[in-house]
This record gives sequence, C-alpha cells and structure tokens, in this order.
Amino acid sequence: MEIMFLSRADIENVLDMKSAIEGVREVYRQKSLGKTAVWPLISYDFEEPRGVMDIKSGCVFGEKVHGLKMLNSFPGNAERGLPVFTGMLMIFDSETGIPQGVMDASFITCMRTGAAGALGASLLARPESRRLFILGAGRQAIFQIAASLLLMPKIDVVRVSDPLDAENARKFAASCRERLRESFGIDASAVSFEAAEDIAAALAESDIAITVTPARSPVIKKEWVKPGLHLSCVGADMPGKEEIEPEIFAGARVFTDDTPQCFRCGELELAAAKGVISEKDVAGELGDVIAGKAAGRTSPDEITIFDATGIATLDLATGKKALELAKAKGLGRYVEL
Amino acid sequence: MEIMFLSRADIENVLDMKSAIEGVREVYRQKSLGKTAVWPLISYDFEEPRGVMDIKSGCVFGEKVHGLKMLNSFPGNAERGLPVFTGMLMIFDSETGIPQGVMDASFITCMRTGAAGALGASLLARPESRRLFILGAGRQAIFQIAASLLLMPKIDVVRVSDPLDAENARKFAASCRERLRESFGIDASAVSFEAAEDIAAALAESDIAITVTPARSPVIKKEWVKPGLHLSCVGADMPGKEEIEPEIFAGARVFTDDTPQCFRCGELELAAAKGVISEKDVAGELGDVIAGKAAGRTSPDEITIFDATGIATLDLATGKKALELAKAKGLGRYVEL
Repeated sequence: MEIMFLSRADIENVLDMKSAIEGVREVYRQKSLGKTAVWPLISYDFEEPRGVMDIKSGCVFGEKVHGLKMLNSFPGNAERGLPVFTGMLMIFDSETGIPQGVMDASFITCMRTGAAGALGASLLARPESRRLFILGAGRQAIFQIAASLLLMPKIDVVRVSDPLDAENARKFAASCRERLRESFGIDASAVSFEAAEDIAAALAESDIAITVTPARSPVIKKEWVKPGLHLSCVGADMPGKEEIEPEIFAGARVFTDDTPQCFRCGELELAAAKGVISEKDVAGELGDVIAGKAAGRTSPDEITIFDATGIATLDLATGKKALELAKAKGLGRYVEL
Repeated sequence: MEIMFLSRADIENVLDMKSAIEGVREVYRQKSLGKTAVWPLISYDFEEPRGVMDIKSGCVFGEKVHGLKMLNSFPGNAERGLPVFTGMLMIFDSETGIPQGVMDASFITCMRTGAAGALGASLLARPESRRLFILGAGRQAIFQIAASLLLMPKIDVVRVSDPLDAENARKFAASCRERLRESFGIDASAVSFEAAEDIAAALAESDIAITVTPARSPVIKKEWVKPGLHLSCVGADMPGKEEIEPEIFAGARVFTDDTPQCFRCGELELAAAKGVISEKDVAGELGDVIAGKAAGRTSPDEITIFDATGIATLDLATGKKALELAKAKGLGRYVEL
C-alpha cells in the first residue's frame, strides 16, 4: 500500500487557486446540506518552551474524504532559525479508511483561506463591485487578492493598508502584480495596486473590504463604513481577536462560515459579548447562500459581512484536490506504507 | 525541512522488542510522575460503509515528543481485498513543534501492546514464574510472548488457547519458536509451546495468564484462577469487551495502565458495573510500581491483575524510538516538507 507525500513546493506546483475556490465552494455547500462533519478541536499550550499545538479534524462525506490537520506554533523557534509555524495534513478515503496522502499544511491553509474570504465577497458584494480594500499586508493578503481577482474580474483597483507599517503596505502593493503572475498565473496588468495610509479614505472609495490582520482591537471604525460595503472578516480566528468595530454588525446582513464557531472565536465573538448581535441576527452560513437556502445581499445599500474563521473540512477538500492534481501531473512522492 | 517516513517494513527492520519495552517502561514511569499528557480521544462511526476512525494524541514531556495516532477500521474492506485496519502515527518535537516523522502505526501498536502486557506480568507475577498462558492466538499473541520471554527468561512453558478455534491455537503454537527467531531474534529452543484446549487445565498449570482476545463475555472463570496467578488483561480496550469473570477482581491486587480509562473501556468497566470493584480498590497504575510509588505483589498467594487498555503516549515514545533507530541504521526515507 502506497500513500502520496506532498511537500509545500509540490503543492505550490500543483494546486491552483481556481481549484481551491471550487473545493471551498463545494465544502460550504455540503456543510449547508449537512454532509460534512467537524470533530472536536484538540489544542494544547506548551509552557517551556512556549508553544501551541492543535488538531482539527473532520469529514466531507460528498467528497469521500476525512482526516486531520495538526498545527504547531512555537514563537521561540524564530530565534533558533527554525520555522515558527509548522503543519501537517493527513487525508483518508472515508469509504475505506485507507490513508491517501500526507502533506505540508501551510500553503493549503493559505489557499483555502484566500478562497474563503474572496468567495464571501463574490457572493455578497454588490455585483458591480470593482474596488477592493485589503486590511493587512501580511502572508494572507496576496491569497485574498488572487482569489478575488479570479472570482470578480471587474475588480480594477486594489488598495492595501498595513495599520502598523505603512512602508510594508507600499512594498507589498508594489509587488502584487508580479506575485500574482508568478505564483498564481494571474494577469493583473489592468489592475491598479495602491498602498493606502488613510484607511477611512480608502474605505470611502472601496466596494469590498477584506480584513486579514491579527488585530486584537478594532481597526475599522463604524463611521468609515458606507452603505453597500461588503466586509469579509478573515483575521479573527481565536478568542480575543477583532478587526472591525462591533457596532458595524448592527443592521448589517451577516453570514458566517460556521455560526457557532464564529461566535466562539471569530469577529462575532466580541460583537456578541457587547450585545450588538446574537445568533438569531445571523442571516445564515455562506454555504446556505451557495446551496440556495438563504438569500445573499437583498439591497444595494445593505452592508454585508462574512465572518470566516476557517474549518478543517476546507483543508481536507483542498488537500484532496492537491493529491488529485499531483497524480494527474505525475508530481509528489509515493511512499510505501 | 525534512521529515522521516517509515513504512511498516522499515519499522519491522529497525524496532526491536527490547527497545519497545524500554520505551513503554519509561512512559509508564513518566505518567506516574505527571510528565505525560493524553489529550481527548476523537472518534467517529461511519455508517455507509460502516467504519470507525479514532485519533489518539498526547505528549511525553521527558522524551520531548508529542503527536497523534490516527486509526481507521472498515470491516467491509476485507471483501474488497483491502486492509481492514490502517493507522498512521505522526511524531513532533515538543520543544519546537517541528514534525519529526510519519509512519505506519500497525506494527508499533503491536509492539507496544506486547511490551505492556509482558511488563505488567514481569512486575507483578511471582518472581519464580515460568509457565505462561496466552488466551487468544490472533495477531497480538506472538508480541506478548516475545516480550514475556525477554523480560522473564525463566519462562520455559507457553500454553496458548484460542477459545473459538482449537486448530488455530495448534497451528500458532507449532509456529511460535520459528516466528520468535525470525521476527524477534529470540532463541526459544528451551521453551515448550503447547496448544491448550482445556483452559481450566492450562490455567491450573500456569503462573501467568495474558488475555488478548476481542471477547465480549468472560472466557476465564473465577473457579479456574488459583492463588498466586498473575493476569495481564490486554484484549478489552473498548466499552463492552471483557475476557475474565468480574468476580476475579474481588480480593485481587489490581493495577491499570490508566485508571479512569480502564474503568471507561477496559476489563474493569464491566466488573465495576457489576459492583465487584471500584476505583478505590485499585492499587495503582503500573507506572506507580515502576516509579517506586506503589508496591507490586505483596504476597506469593495474591492474585494480581494488570488491566491494559493502551495509551497514545506509548505509541509516541515507541515511534520516536523507531525514528532514532532508523536514523542510526540509515533506514527510512527522508521526505522534504
């Protein structure tokens, strides 16, 4: 019995953003139809040296895949010249239990997260949207932009702001076109990329905002949010994180990737704690829109919000796609089990 | 960054039973000293086709190893010519979180289970014990015998009974000497191996009994158990399984590998449900004997019982040993992460 092993480099070679988007869309749809399962999160805090590990697992029945993602984060590694984050994904056939593949989890996590944020925007933003604002110029930003450009070809302006480091945003904006071409095969020659120091001004001229910072207090203020804006809030994925003022949720049309999880550790957590919103105010999960069970945006002036916290099933479906693509392209390594 | 991948064949090549025993002994000792952690079990029952998966994870702090074992069992695979049980083990460095290795879990599970049952016997049986009875002639039996012979060189008679298939026990007994030599490098030329059809008679002439069946109702009766016998009960590892009559626990000196787990799903589960024994009657965990925190056997006539359910930390420590041995011997395959 053989299984396939994929390194990060292998996955970068085989997995394209279009495939990742289709995988994420399908998982959301199946989730809405009750055809996915997420099993309890295991996590542990190491004290000496300090570190966190977590194990996320689940099943996508329609894709016949189950498995797990094991992530480790040890901040002290940086001083020792070692990677701070490492992760492994294991993919099993859920009709036989037989292992299909083992792979690096980092690139897959970035791809499915980019796909998720952009999918929320493409489903909920006004159809004529063409100006994208990205809050955060870190590791995730380029993935959000790549997926957004693929899903929303009308986009012709991308503004990027790094709330802590304006110079970083400038460098990032200057590199976007090249990175999109090299890493994603996307021709963005018709798109203008700008660093935005004044977030309020940038938002005033944007149709879509995607937030991908690790912020723990709101960066985007209610007063900056004009009617009709869509926000995909991607950064908040553990208790205590928030990127937008809770009051923005009041009156907005709100979708989640997984409602209980968003209230536990997403952007909704602190908004709910402040009493601005509760579960009954949520219009649905994004999968409900995809499955036709919930209407997305209902008017041009509505503010729509998609709170995305990340689900293990997205990694599994994306990992399975990577295995299939590697097989088709003759890449990856088979190892005897 | 590279990690090591070990197939079952690699592990059979590098991992010897003495190393497995030392690994298990050390994990039990560290467990008694509070230096291990077992994280919550994740398990899931698939309905169509029927199957079970579980994820066991934990950490052995003294060995600087954490990780997980993912097991799948799909009975319908047999008809399709596929393995029913498959398992993967992932080993991480718990000082950096960096993955160290991925390997097949099946042989490691067998080795650490054999080491555990025999370690219980060597620590609790009368020192002069020389007659071993094995209930069950399935996959686990040879591992229990191999570890017992290594730990208790006085053993010169091994009797094996298969309560459902006497012929199987005969074949197994006839093959033992050869298998011990070939698979474990053990010279058992001075040991007699006998199939025992009459369990009562075999027990009457044994010092140690190790039970390794999947029985769901007691096979060994109270009246067959004479003073001074040691029993290692290894087969019961999930709710509903039991191999010995609950009454045998009354008055016996009882040890566990993990007390709460044994009452949840080990041989002790149904004995406790019958009211024969409760947690306060347990003398300790086997690690307490190893660490010098509890006395083992206190008299020659005492009946001692070791209830072993299996702990993820045993797999992790054994897997780490396999990685170290593979490195030292230049075996295994490094794959780029």
